[in-house]
Amino acid sequence: MFTSDYLRELSDKAITSLGVSAEADKLFAPVRYILSIGGKRLRPVMCLLACNLFKDKIDEAVMPAAGIEVFHNFTLIHDDIIDKADLRRGSPTVHSKWGHDQAILSGDVMAFVAVECIGQAPEKALPRTLKLFNRTAIEVCIGQQLDIDYEKKGVVSETEYIRMIELKTAVLIAASLKTGAIIGEASEKDQDLLYEFGRCLGIAFQIQDDVLDTYGDTKMFGKKTGSDIIANKKTYLLVKAMEMAGGEKLRQLRKLMEAGNHDPEEKVQAVRTIYDDLEIRLQAENLAYDYFNRSFQALDQVTVNAERKKEIKQMAVNLIGRVK
Amino acid sequence: MFTSDYLRELSDKAITSLGVSAEADKLFAPVRYILSIGGKRLRPVMCLLACNLFKDKIDEAVMPAAGIEVFHNFTLIHDDIIDKADLRRGSPTVHSKWGHDQAILSGDVMAFVAVECIGQAPEKALPRTLKLFNRTAIEVCIGQQLDIDYEKKGVVSETEYIRMIELKTAVLIAASLKTGAIIGEASEKDQDLLYEFGRCLGIAFQIQDDVLDTYGDTKMFGKKTGSDIIANKKTYLLVKAMEMAGGEKLRQLRKLMEAGNHDPEEKVQAVRTIYDDLEIRLQAENLAYDYFNRSFQALDQVTVNAERKKEIKQMAVNLIGRVK
Repeated sequence: MFTSDYLRELSDKAITSLGVSAEADKLFAPVRYILSIGGKRLRPVMCLLACNLFKDKIDEAVMPAAGIEVFHNFTLIHDDIIDKADLRRGSPTVHSKWGHDQAILSGDVMAFVAVECIGQAPEKALPRTLKLFNRTAIEVCIGQQLDIDYEKKGVVSETEYIRMIELKTAVLIAASLKTGAIIGEASEKDQDLLYEFGRCLGIAFQIQDDVLDTYGDTKMFGKKTGSDIIANKKTYLLVKAMEMAGGEKLRQLRKLMEAGNHDPEEKVQAVRTIYDDLEIRLQAENLAYDYFNRSFQALDQVTVNAERKKEIKQMAVNLIGRVK
Repeated sequence: MFTSDYLRELSDKAITSLGVSAEADKLFAPVRYILSIGGKRLRPVMCLLACNLFKDKIDEAVMPAAGIEVFHNFTLIHDDIIDKADLRRGSPTVHSKWGHDQAILSGDVMAFVAVECIGQAPEKALPRTLKLFNRTAIEVCIGQQLDIDYEKKGVVSETEYIRMIELKTAVLIAASLKTGAIIGEASEKDQDLLYEFGRCLGIAFQIQDDVLDTYGDTKMFGKKTGSDIIANKKTYLLVKAMEMAGGEKLRQLRKLMEAGNHDPEEKVQAVRTIYDDLEIRLQAENLAYDYFNRSFQALDQVTVNAERKKEIKQMAVNLIGRVK
């Protein structure tokens, strides 16, 4: 069994070998850049851990795992253009460094570098792996579309929000795990269980990310808390609060969200107070835990012995561990 | 043997069945739009004709053929953003109709709809088909990068220009034909010959397109002639003229290209006069014919009888037929 640290190194090595072309370095420099500025390599490591559940030899999964990471980073380049974000993981975004047009085109080429990596799945696993990847990629685009639409929409329901983060975030983690299972020649049942493990884990992860943005320790979390509140981002917390707040509280919340000369610190404090009154944090954490539990239940049913699942379970626990 | 008209209908039917999703119609409306505003379906028809050279049954090639057309249209959406183009085939471009952000995201999803179609190649042909598609898609991005770079570069050599159009235009036509040959279970030699046929045809086609923009009959060509000259677009004609013009003529040419209050009609006329003095049109047409000849030579060597090649040859002749 491999450790997740070792698999992270392995993924990193595969990923940093990509995006080299003598003919158009301008095109590939942003590709290498975004792949080099960090990230936890969560998706490829999950993919390789899943493969390793069923097989001792995991080399055949390395390039497809890298492909999923490349795809993820491709979406970040284009999302950052759309979100007008200047920073990503503390570094300038691709479009702020090279301009919009370059970010569009370098993003595009990455999409096909990703598919090229996926295409290196063993022949027997290729049709399934590719189909899963494509369906997932399309779902991620739908998730991004819903995210954009919901930012402009007055009221978003909890159900709509969960579906959005499922598509935008969870399905790619789910697909990473299932890809590893497919290449590991797991049974269809086990493949689906790993997908479900990843899907629930991804949803939990995103809800928790929303909690951390508002309640996290800046030092531990690595970014300034309250940024979602300042930007009126439709997080789980805001969606839930707007669903629960009635009359006066809803009026207060809407007023705080109106463009105006709110002092950012005061706005964060005021919105937090409303959240606290409605016990939003508790509900969010409960929902995240529900999804964590569902994810572990799925993993528990996978037909390999508990010892082999230790590392992948630890990886999931570490993700949870960020919260409390 | 199928006629190209029938194959065009077949492609059209496959293509218009794509881009439907109840969950995010906003995402897919631009996809359906760009696929519906025309285009000659050159690539899918070429793919199906190539398949039909070797096989009477061509159904297995229909979705991959459609995928190539979807990919082509995806590049058009993003290229139009980068080129700030308002019109495409006489209709508003996607970004001018739905905005830049939507054009980026709807383009992105199309890339994966394209791969999904390619993924429907028969299992035996899938690894090869997918590899070819990916390599080609990456080359097309490199071609677009070179095109952008060359527009900003003072001097572009003829060799650089030919390589750029090879990547931006020719390799996709070549890949369309080779994809058909792969799915048609042609020998590797025949697959490569069809690739070469398409590559040379594509280069010839693009040079001719440059000639038509400056010398074509507006009514026949369907767009206003002289637009490349007005935009200082680095066409084969301009690249060649700058390479050949010396001293005074080069100075004149550069002056005409400087931003200023040139009357567009006068500018077109003046640049054309320089082209005529240097016999640029003749040289361009000669080069286009060279490539046409090379393309036919490759086709002639394909090991199926001449009768079977009639339709694909006619399709190529029709492409040439536009010039004279």
